[in-house]
Amino acid sequence: MDPLAGWRLDQEPYYQPAGREIEAFEAARASRLPVLLKGPTGCGKTRFVEHMAWRLKVPLVTVACHEDLTAGDLAGRWLLDAQGTRWMDGPLAMAARHGALCYLDELLEARSDTTVLLHPLADTRRALPLERHGELLQAHPDFQLVVSYNPGYQGVHKRLKPSTRQRFVALEFRYPEPTVEAAIVVREGGIDESLARRLVQLAERTRRLQDQGLEEGASTRMLVHAARLVRAGLPPALAARQAIADPLSDDAELLAALNALVCASF
Amino acid sequence: MDPLAGWRLDQEPYYQPAGREIEAFEAARASRLPVLLKGPTGCGKTRFVEHMAWRLKVPLVTVACHEDLTAGDLAGRWLLDAQGTRWMDGPLAMAARHGALCYLDELLEARSDTTVLLHPLADTRRALPLERHGELLQAHPDFQLVVSYNPGYQGVHKRLKPSTRQRFVALEFRYPEPTVEAAIVVREGGIDESLARRLVQLAERTRRLQDQGLEEGASTRMLVHAARLVRAGLPPALAARQAIADPLSDDAELLAALNALVCASF
Amino acid sequence: MDPLAGWRLDQEPYYQPAGREIEAFEAARASRLPVLLKGPTGCGKTRFVEHMAWRLKVPLVTVACHEDLTAGDLAGRWLLDAQGTRWMDGPLAMAARHGALCYLDELLEARSDTTVLLHPLADTRRALPLERHGELLQAHPDFQLVVSYNPGYQGVHKRLKPSTRQRFVALEFRYPEPTVEAAIVVREGGIDESLARRLVQLAERTRRLQDQGLEEGASTRMLVHAARLVRAGLPPALAARQAIADPLSDDAELLAALNALVCASF
Amino acid sequence: MDPLAGWRLDQEPYYQPAGREIEAFEAARASRLPVLLKGPTGCGKTRFVEHMAWRLKVPLVTVACHEDLTAGDLAGRWLLDAQGTRWMDGPLAMAARHGALCYLDELLEARSDTTVLLHPLADTRRALPLERHGELLQAHPDFQLVVSYNPGYQGVHKRLKPSTRQRFVALEFRYPEPTVEAAIVVREGGIDESLARRLVQLAERTRRLQDQGLEEGASTRMLVHAARLVRAGLPPALAARQAIADPLSDDAELLAALNALVCASF
Amino acid sequence: MDPLAGWRLDQEPYYQPAGREIEAFEAARASRLPVLLKGPTGCGKTRFVEHMAWRLKVPLVTVACHEDLTAGDLAGRWLLDAQGTRWMDGPLAMAARHGALCYLDELLEARSDTTVLLHPLADTRRALPLERHGELLQAHPDFQLVVSYNPGYQGVHKRLKPSTRQRFVALEFRYPEPTVEAAIVVREGGIDESLARRLVQLAERTRRLQDQGLEEGASTRMLVHAARLVRAGLPPALAARQAIADPLSDDAELLAALNALVCASF
Amino acid sequence: MDPLAGWRLDQEPYYQPAGREIEAFEAARASRLPVLLKGPTGCGKTRFVEHMAWRLKVPLVTVACHEDLTAGDLAGRWLLDAQGTRWMDGPLAMAARHGALCYLDELLEARSDTTVLLHPLADTRRALPLERHGELLQAHPDFQLVVSYNPGYQGVHKRLKPSTRQRFVALEFRYPEPTVEAAIVVREGGIDESLARRLVQLAERTRRLQDQGLEEGASTRMLVHAARLVRAGLPPALAARQAIADPLSDDAELLAALNALVCASF
Repeated sequence: MDPLAGWRLDQEPYYQPAGREIEAFEAARASRLPVLLKGPTGCGKTRFVEHMAWRLKVPLVTVACHEDLTAGDLAGRWLLDAQGTRWMDGPLAMAARHGALCYLDELLEARSDTTVLLHPLADTRRALPLERHGELLQAHPDFQLVVSYNPGYQGVHKRLKPSTRQRFVALEFRYPEPTVEAAIVVREGGIDESLARRLVQLAERTRRLQDQGLEEGASTRMLVHAARLVRAGLPPALAARQAIADPLSDDAELLAALNALVCASF
Repeated sequence: MDPLAGWRLDQEPYYQPAGREIEAFEAARASRLPVLLKGPTGCGKTRFVEHMAWRLKVPLVTVACHEDLTAGDLAGRWLLDAQGTRWMDGPLAMAARHGALCYLDELLEARSDTTVLLHPLADTRRALPLERHGELLQAHPDFQLVVSYNPGYQGVHKRLKPSTRQRFVALEFRYPEPTVEAAIVVREGGIDESLARRLVQLAERTRRLQDQGLEEGASTRMLVHAARLVRAGLPPALAARQAIADPLSDDAELLAALNALVCASF
Repeated sequence: MDPLAGWRLDQEPYYQPAGREIEAFEAARASRLPVLLKGPTGCGKTRFVEHMAWRLKVPLVTVACHEDLTAGDLAGRWLLDAQGTRWMDGPLAMAARHGALCYLDELLEARSDTTVLLHPLADTRRALPLERHGELLQAHPDFQLVVSYNPGYQGVHKRLKPSTRQRFVALEFRYPEPTVEAAIVVREGGIDESLARRLVQLAERTRRLQDQGLEEGASTRMLVHAARLVRAGLPPALAARQAIADPLSDDAELLAALNALVCASF
Repeated sequence: MDPLAGWRLDQEPYYQPAGREIEAFEAARASRLPVLLKGPTGCGKTRFVEHMAWRLKVPLVTVACHEDLTAGDLAGRWLLDAQGTRWMDGPLAMAARHGALCYLDELLEARSDTTVLLHPLADTRRALPLERHGELLQAHPDFQLVVSYNPGYQGVHKRLKPSTRQRFVALEFRYPEPTVEAAIVVREGGIDESLARRLVQLAERTRRLQDQGLEEGASTRMLVHAARLVRAGLPPALAARQAIADPLSDDAELLAALNALVCASF
Repeated sequence: MDPLAGWRLDQEPYYQPAGREIEAFEAARASRLPVLLKGPTGCGKTRFVEHMAWRLKVPLVTVACHEDLTAGDLAGRWLLDAQGTRWMDGPLAMAARHGALCYLDELLEARSDTTVLLHPLADTRRALPLERHGELLQAHPDFQLVVSYNPGYQGVHKRLKPSTRQRFVALEFRYPEPTVEAAIVVREGGIDESLARRLVQLAERTRRLQDQGLEEGASTRMLVHAARLVRAGLPPALAARQAIADPLSDDAELLAALNALVCASF
Repeated sequence: MDPLAGWRLDQEPYYQPAGREIEAFEAARASRLPVLLKGPTGCGKTRFVEHMAWRLKVPLVTVACHEDLTAGDLAGRWLLDAQGTRWMDGPLAMAARHGALCYLDELLEARSDTTVLLHPLADTRRALPLERHGELLQAHPDFQLVVSYNPGYQGVHKRLKPSTRQRFVALEFRYPEPTVEAAIVVREGGIDESLARRLVQLAERTRRLQDQGLEEGASTRMLVHAARLVRAGLPPALAARQAIADPLSDDAELLAALNALVCASF
């Protein structure tokens, strides 16, 4: 029985390359070097990892990092059973033992113990010490570590230490070029290209609002949302307001600016 | 056996639409896009979700967020049994597995681990990784996520990150128009329309006190409370004081201003 | 068997009304509206709730709130048994299930998860989601929620949010009028009226010391304590010092002022 | 079997009264009013409570408060047994159930949940709600609550709230008068009166150093320690240095001042 | 069977007295008074306690204090067994029950609950309340409490309260006199006296660097380390650098000063 | 059965000495003195420990320190079994009991309780008190303690106390000399020497950027990563960007400077 059967991807996840990122990932894969994906929200990092897992025919175990995720959640824990306690691998141990891509999303959100746990897996040792299990788990040859974060969030308390950073090869992600982005919106949102282009233009304008205090501009994901609302029957302006402007901010002035951009676009 | 039987609504919850929110919700529902409701206390967000659940014939699982709600509370936990440990889905896993609306009320109050847990459910993956159960739960086709918060509370430490916001379609709620609000008070409070109108006028005056330091003005819910006290025999001024003025503030000056408004109204 | 038998009041708790609070409580009771009691320490809030529980013939479940009281303490928990785990309702679930008044004393001391747990019980839903039990508990028709707090303590970190406040009808409590207070001291302290009046005068003087830094003046409860010490044989001045002056402050200047008031009174 | 047998005092604890504190305690005892002892370290508060417990023939259950003492530690907890879980009363519940004096030493060190737990026991309800046991424990008629604290330590974060203070009758303790203190040192330290007087004089001088930054002067307990070192063969100056000067401070200047006082005394 | 067999010292631990500390300890031992050892790192406090335990023929139970050591770790805990729960004494309870010296090293590092737990053991009560075991443990006649700390570390948050300090008799430790220190280095490090003297001179010079920001000068222990490296074949300058200079500081300027001292010494 | 079989090194780990560190380690090993390794990320500390473990034929137990690693994780814990609870040694106890090198990586990240736990193991006592197991574990004669940290990270809250530092002999690590470093890159990265030299030059330039705000320069490990990407087919400039420049910083200006260095190098 394949313990990672539920984590294999059956269908090719749609991914539109923006540069040489597939080639670079494959070069890192050749030595099983750990990979770090940097980039803003909703620009396709997660989709890229899904695509590479499908392409390389390896299962994909994803963990969303947060400050309450403990090393025990990742490594594993003892469960009580009718016959006593039984060890249950956490997602990281499971991926290391059986040979999956292990993708830790938003690593900056993780606590230090989670991050440090990656160190021996992310250098030539390729080992995960399971102190509570009394085991030094040697990673499967197919195992590889991928992490992502959004450099825009990095603050005083949320930084990766050099001892972590220097264990990874990095790939930087940006929003796709306008024609690529419009093609994605057409394909995923089910609308015509002319409307898709107007949505992409709107997104680019919101991204310029970052200088005026907007935390982050509209992602490709938001454009797909707006497209789907239109396909479900909402007029484009209302769809753009509810899928793009209203979720982007709660600040009255920024909302007014965003709504003016919406009105000017449709 | 329907595991969500206790979470189905038998009767239509009374809801008075204020705009195109039902249509917009249905457009988001067509693609199962997650929905974010923004608006002040007591303006009908919860009632709207109940109404939509009844209208769409899906069960409704509600979770009130707070800073001590853990990811384990939402996702599930192991219980000890005579036969050993047994897994018990949390409300979010239960809703995702069996196909309910899952409504997370006051999401700004939630801890980061709760919020991050929603990410893979709130994008095209529609999956909930149950690390402690060793399961990657694929959401039921009927599952949809709805969250709400009050933008007025948002402070330095209580903000939604762009990576969360950008996964949602947003609907904004405000207090109903005066005639709509009076109709709600007549229907829910059991009083005549003339008194209902006077209560609505009083509420509008309290809402203007926000500029003078009142945290939030009287909600429609408070007017219904006052109406019910009158129906139970209290004089309107006393009812308004106890259902509206006294609960709104503990500040001596604001209380004096509120009581003056009550006196002027009845 | 009545699961709340131990929580029924057999004897009428003595309560001296100060205004229309009994009538107002009964009007709120007609619609089962939740009630909020505001007022200083020792002025009779708890006694009033006991009196109303006796008057309405409903059991009374009291919970003293504090910052370490968890939602699990209120809602319930799993206990381990010879047959495995067994659910045990917490006081709030027990009151909601079997139809008691549930009185949460000093709600400002409670943590946010405790407070938020009250929300669905305190609006038209009248439900308590017991996530850990997988149950949406519908409150018994006799169930009603009563909370109290002392507005004088409210600080930056201890405030009720509007979304909590606006769910309640409020009753404000103050110290009783002098003649009423003296009658209470006579009845509960077992002394003659002349001494009771002198104690009430002393209390009123201490209450004026709040402008000079005393946190709170002497409560009716303290006067009853002093009366009982006199009845047990202590001279009035010594009794007043030990029951009133010494407990009120540790500040040397305030103690001197309080002792001067005691000397001037006897 | 007497469940509190281990907590009864067989021998009279030596106590030298300093004023009318025995009479005052007995007056409070007549109505079972809770008693608050205020005073500096080592001046005899604990000994007084032991003496009163012996005098009144009630068992004495003592709890040293600290910030990690939980309400569960005081109230009780479930223990796992071959037959399942078994309830075990904490010291407060044990004292309330079987009728002991319950003495909470250094109440200012306790957390808020510990302090609030005392409220229903410390007013006319005389009840302890054991939420986790599903029991409203009515105190035994012999039960009485005694607490102590050192007002000198009270800081911003360590204050008793009025709602706690006003439930108690207070007795203030100071260091004994010189002749009384010397008599205690003779009796407990086994030295002659002339040396005891010199130790008391030294103690009084250290107490005056509080104006120069010494946190607290030498207590009667320290004088007894010095006396015992002398009785065991140390010269008085060395004994006073090791039992009084060295423990009182780590500050170089204060130590020099203390050692000068020791040299001047012997 | 002797439950403390593993804690008895078979061989005399080498200890070179610096003053009358053995006599003073024995005087405190006569009345079982608790003893407080003050002094810098590595000056022989621990060795002194081992020596006294051997001399007095009592077992020695040592606990290294730290801020995560709980009262439960010291007092004991319930363990689950095939027959249910079984109580297991912590080191403090074990020492008190069976009559050992209990030595708490670096008491300033302990949490308040640990410190307060010592109070009833450290006065005439000589009792340890084991609330969780429902037991008031009376200390064995041979039991004695010894604690140590380094006064140089004492900061705002790490102070002993007077109520703790005043329960102890204090002995102050300093670095040994040069000839004594050299004799210790010869004996423990296995080198000749001339080299030992040079190491002691180097240590004295590093101790003067405390005025220039060095946290603490070289201890006797470090000199023994350097001596052993020399005995194992390293040249003295390299040995002194690795055993003394490099461990003492990470600051570039202080390291340069330390290395200059090393060079000047050999 | 050898309980540490999984922790023995079968093959010689490649290590290129930079000075007399092997000799110095062996001198410390002769007396089993604990060793402290200081130096920047990726300069070979971990590899050196692996090499020494292989050279000395002792098993190596490595623990990555972090702020959530508890003393219990290191010392051991009770596990529940069909026959009751069973003790399981933590990695430190396992290493001490069976005679391994125990290597605590990044000790500055550890909590105080972890650090204090090392004290009795790191002096002449060579003992680990397992309070929860009721055992004073005497270390195996082969046991030795090794710790490492990066002095560059040391901040206000992350410092080793003198009482910890002074128990260790220290070895300082730096980046290897250019020719040594190039040899390592050739051997581990599988590229020719000319490219290796260019990578080493690039690394040296990045190390000079520390004056301009770069937290740490490129480590030898990063050069090996770049070499491997080249061997897998990426052009050197792209490889250097993804293995060196992009992981080193997220700061726009520093990234521009790093990329300029990359361009100038290839």
